[in-house]
Amino acid sequence: MSSFGETAVPLGPRQADLPGVAVAALGGGHGLYASLAALREVVGDLTAVVTVADNGGSSGRLRSEFGVLPPGDLRMALAALCGDDDWGRTWAEVLQHRFAGDGDMRGHAIGNLLIVGLWELLGDEVSALDWVGRLLGARGRVLPMAVTPLDITADVRRPDGPDGTPGAVERVRGQVEVASSAGRIVNIQLDPPDPQACPEAVATVRDADWVVLGPGSWYTSVIPHLMVPELRRALVGSRGRLAVVLNLEGQPGETAGYGPEDHLAALFEHAPDLRIDTVVADPRTVADAAGLTRTVADWGARLVVADVAADDGSPRHDPARLAQVFRTLMA
Amino acid sequence: MSSFGETAVPLGPRQADLPGVAVAALGGGHGLYASLAALREVVGDLTAVVTVADNGGSSGRLRSEFGVLPPGDLRMALAALCGDDDWGRTWAEVLQHRFAGDGDMRGHAIGNLLIVGLWELLGDEVSALDWVGRLLGARGRVLPMAVTPLDITADVRRPDGPDGTPGAVERVRGQVEVASSAGRIVNIQLDPPDPQACPEAVATVRDADWVVLGPGSWYTSVIPHLMVPELRRALVGSRGRLAVVLNLEGQPGETAGYGPEDHLAALFEHAPDLRIDTVVADPRTVADAAGLTRTVADWGARLVVADVAADDGSPRHDPARLAQVFRTLMA
Repeated sequence: MSSFGETAVPLGPRQADLPGVAVAALGGGHGLYASLAALREVVGDLTAVVTVADNGGSSGRLRSEFGVLPPGDLRMALAALCGDDDWGRTWAEVLQHRFAGDGDMRGHAIGNLLIVGLWELLGDEVSALDWVGRLLGARGRVLPMAVTPLDITADVRRPDGPDGTPGAVERVRGQVEVASSAGRIVNIQLDPPDPQACPEAVATVRDADWVVLGPGSWYTSVIPHLMVPELRRALVGSRGRLAVVLNLEGQPGETAGYGPEDHLAALFEHAPDLRIDTVVADPRTVADAAGLTRTVADWGARLVVADVAADDGSPRHDPARLAQVFRTLMA
Repeated sequence: MSSFGETAVPLGPRQADLPGVAVAALGGGHGLYASLAALREVVGDLTAVVTVADNGGSSGRLRSEFGVLPPGDLRMALAALCGDDDWGRTWAEVLQHRFAGDGDMRGHAIGNLLIVGLWELLGDEVSALDWVGRLLGARGRVLPMAVTPLDITADVRRPDGPDGTPGAVERVRGQVEVASSAGRIVNIQLDPPDPQACPEAVATVRDADWVVLGPGSWYTSVIPHLMVPELRRALVGSRGRLAVVLNLEGQPGETAGYGPEDHLAALFEHAPDLRIDTVVADPRTVADAAGLTRTVADWGARLVVADVAADDGSPRHDPARLAQVFRTLMA
């Protein structure tokens, strides 16, 4: 079994507007998918750094069976980067496909099984993901933020009682459980608290021209990157600039009622030394533009308010609109 | 999702000595793997037609869960045809890899899961196998002999009793059960008895220059092809010539004690109208060369006795030696 670099199959066509710009996109799930779908059209050197704390669904079952990283967010990021041709799109569709039926295989995504099988065969997380990237003719690389599976725990303030007694703060464990917790998340931790960062991810963040954080599930897909000590040091010490893309609304169970200031405050509570260059917010989330501009400036950053929401009424970002923001920002 | 023909990834390098010769290789399992490993080096147009009666292991579990064709023999044939480069060999190794551990996934070959997932996604057995072939840069095509899963049943004469009472003839059901039956197989049947042949396989057999039958598990991988009515009609009516490659020894539970004459007799018992051009036998299996030559001639065929066994003492064919026989035969 040879290494990634020796294969001879060509990558898919590339049409980046900024071929010389290197970007590391940090996140997980649908939020990272959106930022990658935008960035793939803009920059020539793109790496996704993906959270590895999922404990639900197909990923959770595979993680439990094999003790491996949860593959689902990695698979989705790879699919987001698939080649522009029929080959790349077809294999992305194959990797994203989930088995139907009601047997042992039900709900497993084919790509999750392929990734875990490659891990077992190669014994090297990064090399295996590179092989899947080659299969897709991917327009970028996908790396895990850490090389050991980890769990998110959260301190959650439970709702006040009907008699006005203040809700207790309880420790909740597991990405699924944290993301659906009743109450307000006070903070999160990782278990183990100092997981080994993926060395390639650390190097990518350190050397990037831009690091993009968000959008995505704030406490379970975005903030976890700040809790991996080596990755956070690389982020704080990076020669590149950090763009934070805010969510379009709060998420029930995780960030219900959060506005832009709340999202930003949560970042700084977990990483007070974070240096943000640019904050991207959609106008529909901004109630007080002047106030938000001042708040962002207080943190040493600038605010870009741009129409980046999809037209379908969902809380999803529109890739083409987000791409236009990145294009302007990174040119 | 587009069709096979539209993809743009190049096939692996081809170095066939006889680029204009079209061959259909019929069989299953390790025997077919051996004939394909030989033929891939010799002919320019190679198609494997694979038995689909397996009911054991990973294939049996997937067949049971999804009601699909058993994928294992198809996967192994695809792996045998993988491209000559690092890319093709690596993906073949990936497809052949079986999950370890002791959970739900244990023993499943990655390629089996990929094939079944593609079937579910595409709803077309042949197109899905073509996609896997493209992934491998395969030097040939792999088709199922029938498009519906089927079972092998066998009439098995049980061993005589210790008091000399003749063993009874019993019906045994299932490829695994037939291949490990205690007693002597009298004949086999398919259930359903008239499965729908794969149309592309029928056309390939009808139009081939050569059809190669065997080596392989005689009753469970070779003779089943003769029991699919459409495929047998295509074989008997083919403009091409039929080469039968005999096994190097009998298999316990299936053909224990069988010599060349017994293998041939079993073929004709199941397909009396079969027209064989050439029979290939290894000298170590031939006790009476003159007698075997006459027997083969009585069936209208010629005998080629050639050293085709592997040197390791196994009952496996050596691909390079078998290739040399095919090269001479088909030139």
